[in-house]
Amino acid sequence: MKVRGFKASAVKAGIKHPDRLDLGLIVSDFPVVAAGVFTSNEVKAAPVIAGIKRLKNGKPFLKALIVNSGNANACTGKHGLMDVMELCDLVSRKIDCRPDEVLMSSTGVIGRPLPVQKIKDALPSLVQGLREDGLDDVAAAILTTDLVKKTALREVEFGNSLTTILGIAKGSGMIAPGMISPQATMLAFIMTDASIHSDFARQILQKTTDSAFNAITVDGCMSTNDTVLLLASGLAGNETINGGDNGKIFEEALHEVMSSLASQIVKDGEGATKLVTVKVKGARRREDARIIARAIADSLLVKTAFFGEDPNWGRILSAAGQAGFPLIQGLLSVFINNIPIVRMGEGLGDEAEADAKKVMEGSEFTVTLDLGLGEFEAKVLTCDLTCDYVKINADYRT
Amino acid sequence: MKVRGFKASAVKAGIKHPDRLDLGLIVSDFPVVAAGVFTSNEVKAAPVIAGIKRLKNGKPFLKALIVNSGNANACTGKHGLMDVMELCDLVSRKIDCRPDEVLMSSTGVIGRPLPVQKIKDALPSLVQGLREDGLDDVAAAILTTDLVKKTALREVEFGNSLTTILGIAKGSGMIAPGMISPQATMLAFIMTDASIHSDFARQILQKTTDSAFNAITVDGCMSTNDTVLLLASGLAGNETINGGDNGKIFEEALHEVMSSLASQIVKDGEGATKLVTVKVKGARRREDARIIARAIADSLLVKTAFFGEDPNWGRILSAAGQAGFPLIQGLLSVFINNIPIVRMGEGLGDEAEADAKKVMEGSEFTVTLDLGLGEFEAKVLTCDLTCDYVKINADYRT
Repeated sequence: MKVRGFKASAVKAGIKHPDRLDLGLIVSDFPVVAAGVFTSNEVKAAPVIAGIKRLKNGKPFLKALIVNSGNANACTGKHGLMDVMELCDLVSRKIDCRPDEVLMSSTGVIGRPLPVQKIKDALPSLVQGLREDGLDDVAAAILTTDLVKKTALREVEFGNSLTTILGIAKGSGMIAPGMISPQATMLAFIMTDASIHSDFARQILQKTTDSAFNAITVDGCMSTNDTVLLLASGLAGNETINGGDNGKIFEEALHEVMSSLASQIVKDGEGATKLVTVKVKGARRREDARIIARAIADSLLVKTAFFGEDPNWGRILSAAGQAGFPLIQGLLSVFINNIPIVRMGEGLGDEAEADAKKVMEGSEFTVTLDLGLGEFEAKVLTCDLTCDYVKINADYRT
Repeated sequence: MKVRGFKASAVKAGIKHPDRLDLGLIVSDFPVVAAGVFTSNEVKAAPVIAGIKRLKNGKPFLKALIVNSGNANACTGKHGLMDVMELCDLVSRKIDCRPDEVLMSSTGVIGRPLPVQKIKDALPSLVQGLREDGLDDVAAAILTTDLVKKTALREVEFGNSLTTILGIAKGSGMIAPGMISPQATMLAFIMTDASIHSDFARQILQKTTDSAFNAITVDGCMSTNDTVLLLASGLAGNETINGGDNGKIFEEALHEVMSSLASQIVKDGEGATKLVTVKVKGARRREDARIIARAIADSLLVKTAFFGEDPNWGRILSAAGQAGFPLIQGLLSVFINNIPIVRMGEGLGDEAEADAKKVMEGSEFTVTLDLGLGEFEAKVLTCDLTCDYVKINADYRT
């Protein structure tokens, strides 16, 4: 797991558990093209506020990203912001760049002061540990309630240049990203050695975030800290990409990396046992389809039925009917994978449901609702709601 | 539990469990003033579709209500509607009134054909059993996953006339009513012997539904069957109420009955162990306050924190920030009952949280979020999210 132009490192700073990696650093050999999207929650963590400001300043170049888990540095007021500034400053001095070329990202408990001293104490060994194959450790350091690391890699050739796109991400609970530019607690950091124009980077990051991360939900709860960052070193030596055919190819590869990470997040959703694609088609507008898919994907009754492996389509229709768009009951059809269980508003009976139940006993399936109204469709990735989710989140801080 | 002018009865029709009351009938001595509000879900059950039509016809008088649990008669197509018509027709013949003076209401599993024959078979004993003190049995017959019956009674004097307002209700899961006139699965039937004008009845029913039932949530899932019905026999002999001071007094008493029933529903929410009032104040508009309160009350992370007795205010702020209204983080304050835990956007520390935790160990408390922006406020009643909720709903049909 390497990308030309980037070194990385992670250490145990003791921010939450003394015995796990919780502080990571990614440093590029020189300031690189950067684009970021951040949570649209009105309550934003200090590192998000600082990151938005940094990337807004018409200086979309970064040399370092410092990231911690165990503490979100959210709802920490002015002190929280000052802590971000101070740490970015310290990092910039250690790696010899300007303070505004360093971005910080955090995830963990909201409302507790960031343990700045612990981070400061860990900085020397963090910097000393920087190495080309260090990204795997960073992928571990950013985890919170996650059970597994999330990484995705694609290689694309442009002319004679083989470029790499590598993404790492975390996220398990408080997952319902709605990230906008230049403004999810999911974190995803994508490094590439492709040469891409900074305007193009910003534009495709928003687009691919919308189709990947902004189309997932674990619990419908949007975080104060969601952040996706794209860093491009350009060291692959390809002709700089700024749209056109190569732009489409790069965008597609980036979308694949992001979709893979997004899917890994939902699969590792807190307590989740099922990865479910909710597809709504036959809508009058794409946005209608998206909102209805989201309503189904976030419905507690639908999600508990997934857990129960119960093709309870009444709950699916009921959730759709609550989304705020006119529906015609007699036109609604529901499929579990390719098995129809509702046609024209009416259930197809016990046999169909028994078949559907068998599909739902697997760990991944697709629920399709056809509205029968138009041409548009949208997909949202979700998981089931289990007792473990409740236990994890009833006990998270205590 | 009697109201002059009404008789009631309930029987075991074997719709779901052979050994429980599941079919009820309320009959007035003569056609009485009636007003109804029904779910605003786009997917409406057959009895709701029929009920809306019936009460729209400028004939707001009813003589009978037949109600079953165990089957929602929702998503049952034309057959479902025909079943409602046929049963209303049969009831009208047995009690000697017009078919359009009978309303049907159902709650239970969605998408299964109504067992009409079982209901037909039970009709003779149902009618034969009609008696003045039968409402208590109806309150039992309408329960599904509910653990307790919900009833509320108020007496109000108008002049020399003592009037009674008696409400019965059911509801435990799929509770997030948004009922509109003349159009929750919560059901509430309110009988009074007060004489009230039918226009006044309609008007105050919408108003009191908004402030009572439409301000509760168990799981954020709006039902296909929610129905509130107000029936007024006028037999108390008071001067007919149509606004004015007496109107206000009656409205207040009706509101008390509805609020009591609403609170009983949330308290008996599926798996619930805590009854929590979420109050949002300091909003720019009442509607903003209502939507933000709802976002908090429906947040899985907030509700699991309630279950964990954890004053996790970061989740409260984060849920509020997701509601779609501009907030100023530095103005936000949070209280558990009267204990401040966040002031001006920042946490007040471990001691404050320890005190708040003690309050949360009780079975009822209030969470107040002050936005610091304006003069408006709203309340939503919610409950915690527990493993039992997940278990109940993963196993509901199987």
